Amino acid sequence: MSRKLRMGMVGGSLEAFIGGVHRIAAAIDGQIELTAGAFSSNPEKSKATGKALFLPDDRVYASFEEMIATEKSRPAEERIDFISIVTPNHLHYAPAKMALENGFHVICDKPMTINLEQAESLQKLVEETGLIFALTHNYTGYPMVKQAKAMIANGEIGTLRKIIVEYPQGWLSSKLEGTGNKQASWRTNPDQSGAGGGLGDIGTHAENLAEYVTGSRIKELCADLSIFVDGRPLDDDGNILIRFDNGAKGILQYSQVANGEENSLSIRVYGETGGLEWRQMEPNSLVHKTNSGYRVLRTNWGQLYPAATAHARIPAGHPEGFLEAFANVYRNFAFAIRAHQEGKPQDPLYDFPTVKDGVRGLRFIDAAIQSGKTDTKWTKI
Amino acid sequence: MSRKLRMGMVGGSLEAFIGGVHRIAAAIDGQIELTAGAFSSNPEKSKATGKALFLPDDRVYASFEEMIATEKSRPAEERIDFISIVTPNHLHYAPAKMALENGFHVICDKPMTINLEQAESLQKLVEETGLIFALTHNYTGYPMVKQAKAMIANGEIGTLRKIIVEYPQGWLSSKLEGTGNKQASWRTNPDQSGAGGGLGDIGTHAENLAEYVTGSRIKELCADLSIFVDGRPLDDDGNILIRFDNGAKGILQYSQVANGEENSLSIRVYGETGGLEWRQMEPNSLVHKTNSGYRVLRTNWGQLYPAATAHARIPAGHPEGFLEAFANVYRNFAFAIRAHQEGKPQDPLYDFPTVKDGVRGLRFIDAAIQSGKTDTKWTKI
Amino acid sequence: MSRKLRMGMVGGSLEAFIGGVHRIAAAIDGQIELTAGAFSSNPEKSKATGKALFLPDDRVYASFEEMIATEKSRPAEERIDFISIVTPNHLHYAPAKMALENGFHVICDKPMTINLEQAESLQKLVEETGLIFALTHNYTGYPMVKQAKAMIANGEIGTLRKIIVEYPQGWLSSKLEGTGNKQASWRTNPDQSGAGGGLGDIGTHAENLAEYVTGSRIKELCADLSIFVDGRPLDDDGNILIRFDNGAKGILQYSQVANGEENSLSIRVYGETGGLEWRQMEPNSLVHKTNSGYRVLRTNWGQLYPAATAHARIPAGHPEGFLEAFANVYRNFAFAIRAHQEGKPQDPLYDFPTVKDGVRGLRFIDAAIQSGKTDTKWTKI
Amino acid sequence: MSRKLRMGMVGGSLEAFIGGVHRIAAAIDGQIELTAGAFSSNPEKSKATGKALFLPDDRVYASFEEMIATEKSRPAEERIDFISIVTPNHLHYAPAKMALENGFHVICDKPMTINLEQAESLQKLVEETGLIFALTHNYTGYPMVKQAKAMIANGEIGTLRKIIVEYPQGWLSSKLEGTGNKQASWRTNPDQSGAGGGLGDIGTHAENLAEYVTGSRIKELCADLSIFVDGRPLDDDGNILIRFDNGAKGILQYSQVANGEENSLSIRVYGETGGLEWRQMEPNSLVHKTNSGYRVLRTNWGQLYPAATAHARIPAGHPEGFLEAFANVYRNFAFAIRAHQEGKPQDPLYDFPTVKDGVRGLRFIDAAIQSGKTDTKWTKI
Repeated sequence: MSRKLRMGMVGGSLEAFIGGVHRIAAAIDGQIELTAGAFSSNPEKSKATGKALFLPDDRVYASFEEMIATEKSRPAEERIDFISIVTPNHLHYAPAKMALENGFHVICDKPMTINLEQAESLQKLVEETGLIFALTHNYTGYPMVKQAKAMIANGEIGTLRKIIVEYPQGWLSSKLEGTGNKQASWRTNPDQSGAGGGLGDIGTHAENLAEYVTGSRIKELCADLSIFVDGRPLDDDGNILIRFDNGAKGILQYSQVANGEENSLSIRVYGETGGLEWRQMEPNSLVHKTNSGYRVLRTNWGQLYPAATAHARIPAGHPEGFLEAFANVYRNFAFAIRAHQEGKPQDPLYDFPTVKDGVRGLRFIDAAIQSGKTDTKWTKI
Repeated sequence: MSRKLRMGMVGGSLEAFIGGVHRIAAAIDGQIELTAGAFSSNPEKSKATGKALFLPDDRVYASFEEMIATEKSRPAEERIDFISIVTPNHLHYAPAKMALENGFHVICDKPMTINLEQAESLQKLVEETGLIFALTHNYTGYPMVKQAKAMIANGEIGTLRKIIVEYPQGWLSSKLEGTGNKQASWRTNPDQSGAGGGLGDIGTHAENLAEYVTGSRIKELCADLSIFVDGRPLDDDGNILIRFDNGAKGILQYSQVANGEENSLSIRVYGETGGLEWRQMEPNSLVHKTNSGYRVLRTNWGQLYPAATAHARIPAGHPEGFLEAFANVYRNFAFAIRAHQEGKPQDPLYDFPTVKDGVRGLRFIDAAIQSGKTDTKWTKI
Repeated sequence: MSRKLRMGMVGGSLEAFIGGVHRIAAAIDGQIELTAGAFSSNPEKSKATGKALFLPDDRVYASFEEMIATEKSRPAEERIDFISIVTPNHLHYAPAKMALENGFHVICDKPMTINLEQAESLQKLVEETGLIFALTHNYTGYPMVKQAKAMIANGEIGTLRKIIVEYPQGWLSSKLEGTGNKQASWRTNPDQSGAGGGLGDIGTHAENLAEYVTGSRIKELCADLSIFVDGRPLDDDGNILIRFDNGAKGILQYSQVANGEENSLSIRVYGETGGLEWRQMEPNSLVHKTNSGYRVLRTNWGQLYPAATAHARIPAGHPEGFLEAFANVYRNFAFAIRAHQEGKPQDPLYDFPTVKDGVRGLRFIDAAIQSGKTDTKWTKI
Repeated sequence: MSRKLRMGMVGGSLEAFIGGVHRIAAAIDGQIELTAGAFSSNPEKSKATGKALFLPDDRVYASFEEMIATEKSRPAEERIDFISIVTPNHLHYAPAKMALENGFHVICDKPMTINLEQAESLQKLVEETGLIFALTHNYTGYPMVKQAKAMIANGEIGTLRKIIVEYPQGWLSSKLEGTGNKQASWRTNPDQSGAGGGLGDIGTHAENLAEYVTGSRIKELCADLSIFVDGRPLDDDGNILIRFDNGAKGILQYSQVANGEENSLSIRVYGETGGLEWRQMEPNSLVHKTNSGYRVLRTNWGQLYPAATAHARIPAGHPEGFLEAFANVYRNFAFAIRAHQEGKPQDPLYDFPTVKDGVRGLRFIDAAIQSGKTDTKWTKI
């Protein structure tokens, strides 16, 4: 097929942070063009955003309903192929559902929905329609995360024993949501965020990363969730003991009040014969430790697994970052859409998080919240 | 103006490395669209590249001459605004000259030309036409490089004393050019690369970075250039003493045979009251040292100078890398073209390397080569 | 007093690791001389060790009982001042008790005893005799640990919220105790080690460090202890949720099976206005993070608290390590003995872990083991 | 021989920095005891120092002449074995000469003397007497420096091509010698320091480290020496191109005005098949880079060369630092004295810098100063 895929965006007006990230991620590999948008529930804002993005007026909509309905009515050769949902959590479900019901593929920010019921409903819809659904757990898009997963899958560190996954941030150390900060406001509002605060926002990234890298699932957990900032209705910190299907044990901790931390997601996995360590803020290094020394694997340097190589673009030492990892999710989603359009199977090398990861995230949120309230040690997921 | 700028690319067929970098850099900020291309001197390759990039057949050309002539004949509302030159060094001058002579702005890879005469000729042409010319000394596009420059300009480390700029790579440690590697082949061929080998390819990046950050110029140097790999006609390593206009002294060293180094450009600047250290491979940190401790400044974290903030896109801790820094050059070039089109002055906040940097680079190459051959200690630039 | 203090050592024959550490630590500051020793329960080994250490034959004893009795009978001007106990855990109590009962000060390795009853008995004896008792929780001897404690005590990071203390090692990843390795053998033997394996050996270091730095006590915990190596009778890994007196929460994790980790003790403390991070393997840096940037404090560089300065010996950049931190415990213990001998009060600047820390450690071990066995979430210490 | 070696110290009164370092270094391994001292040319200061160090009055002398003469007259069983010279540079030669002439071994701080004539005279004396002479170029005492030397000697990085050795400090960024600082005063005074300022004080350390690690000698150099602080009579900064016997080329740079640098000695060596990097401020890591990845070798971790293992004392992860490396020089010197006393050959595993390194350092100083003054590019050493 010799054209770019056409994207319609839901949310992502100019002042939002994540909308711009999605647009860059979609643009980087030249596979996708932004064709339409319902950028805001405020039609003026939507229009202004469309103008700034050089969209023609007739592809800028006042609501996602209008966009989906109108685009559906367009001829195939100009109609959008998929929608990208970049709204706060409580506004994921409705556009995703409507898009799927009208034959559009969907890429959606995480957590997938604000409750498990919605999540399972989407999963059912995806299965029924056979459409492509991607969830932007973007951190699994890094080349060295792919490398870590491949090394573990190939037994390079032996049977897993201990996993430590952490996601500390400091930006909500004070009551930023009281200052008009939009990012802070919706994230700390249960109506918009769902039952989890930090848990949904970043805890699910940690959960997703741990399960992706290890290829195993958290089966039970013991959570100590906290609200450190007075008057905040949702958790801003969590310390969680975790146990995996495969017998490994570990820790998952996240915080939005770890003052001084930027976005310090990391994972350490120890197996019988070695350990791996990856840190998102220096994402091009993967440390492979053993009891006889350690080595540092680097993006695109030396011999890596195909999964790592397939997700790097430029020679070693030219650092690829957050946007490139995010773009890998978009590119692989685009590949899957093309395969779908051509009736071909997806290439497993170009994987991406799906609706199943979304359901999994909601189960994790539910279990952690329940654990946080009980005196019993272990809660099953 | 409510449209993207239209780019025509010279060079950058699918197998080239730097073409893809330029295309991503141009796409990231949504200001530019790839509209046309003469991607290869081989028409078939050019056509195949255009197809893979989803260009219509009639915007893919067999030569830059054809592209410039044909585009010029198109109506203003569809004509390209500028050309991007991503060919080997010996193929920079002709398309740049022709583009300028025909009213197109130019963005060009470095070094600008293969000799000083060509460089000065381009400078004259740019001055005469008033067109915008950008040179992709991309490393000055990093936010923390902008921060370093601003700190020095504002006296935060006092009068400068010592500058150490380094650019070691290891990829040419063996005779890769004998194995069919295209990147290695043209870089080690004087006909395609010019008089400098590593000197032109990476030495000029180091020179440009040092002069940009310090706001001072290298006035004289003493070079020890080497060819370590047998049979290679151009330098693959250089150790150079440098002295600046402002009285500071220092070292510039580069290597393509520093086995094990990826792309380890770095700069350290010491002044009377403090020092700064920046490393390209971890580009989001800038270390500010003083005799009473040190601190680490981070992209988009805390209070930075406007020049740094204006070149970062996402919150701290979401690492921005090589492609984003490269994109800053493209975005600022685009801003300058828009200002030109609207008859407005350029905003100095959005600076980028120009034809003057290109001339400067050629002067540096000439001086270093001359110094390498003489027994006199100091050679003036 | 113009003489060195005289030390008699219990344990520490040539093949032991920790005996040598204690001897170096005692020697570094020139305050103490090794005068006598009962280095092994094997008289031949004891004799050989004494000879290698250049001790006269009549100061080398076949047992600690003999040493204490004989030394007590010597005239004051040649008698030892204190004993240093460097035996496996089960052999701490008896010599400590006998020394205290006979008027000798005591410095003892950790954990203090193999059960709480013994620990409390020693505490009582110390209180009754007024003698000096030091416990070598050596990690609190590092200058930057002192700095961290002082910063927190002075409110530099505000009310504490979250503490993460970790002590991963990898050396017991396989069944080393089955290979004749003495260090591994006694540590994994409940008769010699006590009820805790890794818990007593390194978990108590983590507990002690966390309570020392924060100035607060762990009040309850929730532990997931594991034995990962088949056939090992004691825990070799632990993940523990902790809650402090002052309302802070956190995580304490340790491991002896974190394959590839050397001795990676670290602590991170987050308060309302900032965070601190210290890592034992690079002990001369203390990172002070805030939401507006971070700085790195360095041993003897710039303005530090007196407690930090008083425990560093050489100018910044000359790295001080494990042995110097250990020596700080010995030096401060020596200062306390001199103060005792001269009837003066101890200088609180020169603090060291005492019998109270020892009791505290045993309480921690007991609580963690109990928690590991129960289904109730929280166990009080 | 079953006794410690007896040391008489020249210089090193309480307020001096380096005297304490030598005393700790001598004490660490229990091979040496401080027996006598002429700690200051001021007899009161010498006495007070001796008292603080718990020496008997009759072993504390008013001058080195008195110490050497008196000690020589003592019976062999109490006489000192060697003298340790820790005075400013201009006071090295006389006590070294007198000691050697009277049968005492000598360990001396660096640079060995204040001119080449004195250095060669000492070399002659050492050869004639057959006594042991050690020079405390202490940085070669680090285990990972020994490892680097062994790896290079065994061809692990192939034929050497490029060496970069650096020693930046910042402590003399302002005119500290005008404030009464003793360390600064003598180092910047040609009468006490010799012809080199920073060159002698730290440049020689860099030169010695480079030649030790590479096993090759600098044959010629091109120096740009500076005095950045007004009114200072000696160089406080130097940038030097160097060329080695074996065809390798490189850079040696040092500074005392690199504001914000502590004591940042480092060396990078690149050969045909790999590179090595070692940094004194994190001395337990040695990075081994190749074009297919890199690994980090760590003190006492995994398989190292015997030379590395023989100079480490404690398990990996328990950082050994500056004092332990310094102690390695003392211990190996002590081993050589014992071998001398017992008529045995020295064990080459336990090497240390000798009088030859001292002569070499003075030649380097002379060549660099000469180069700094000439317009000719290369000056032979």
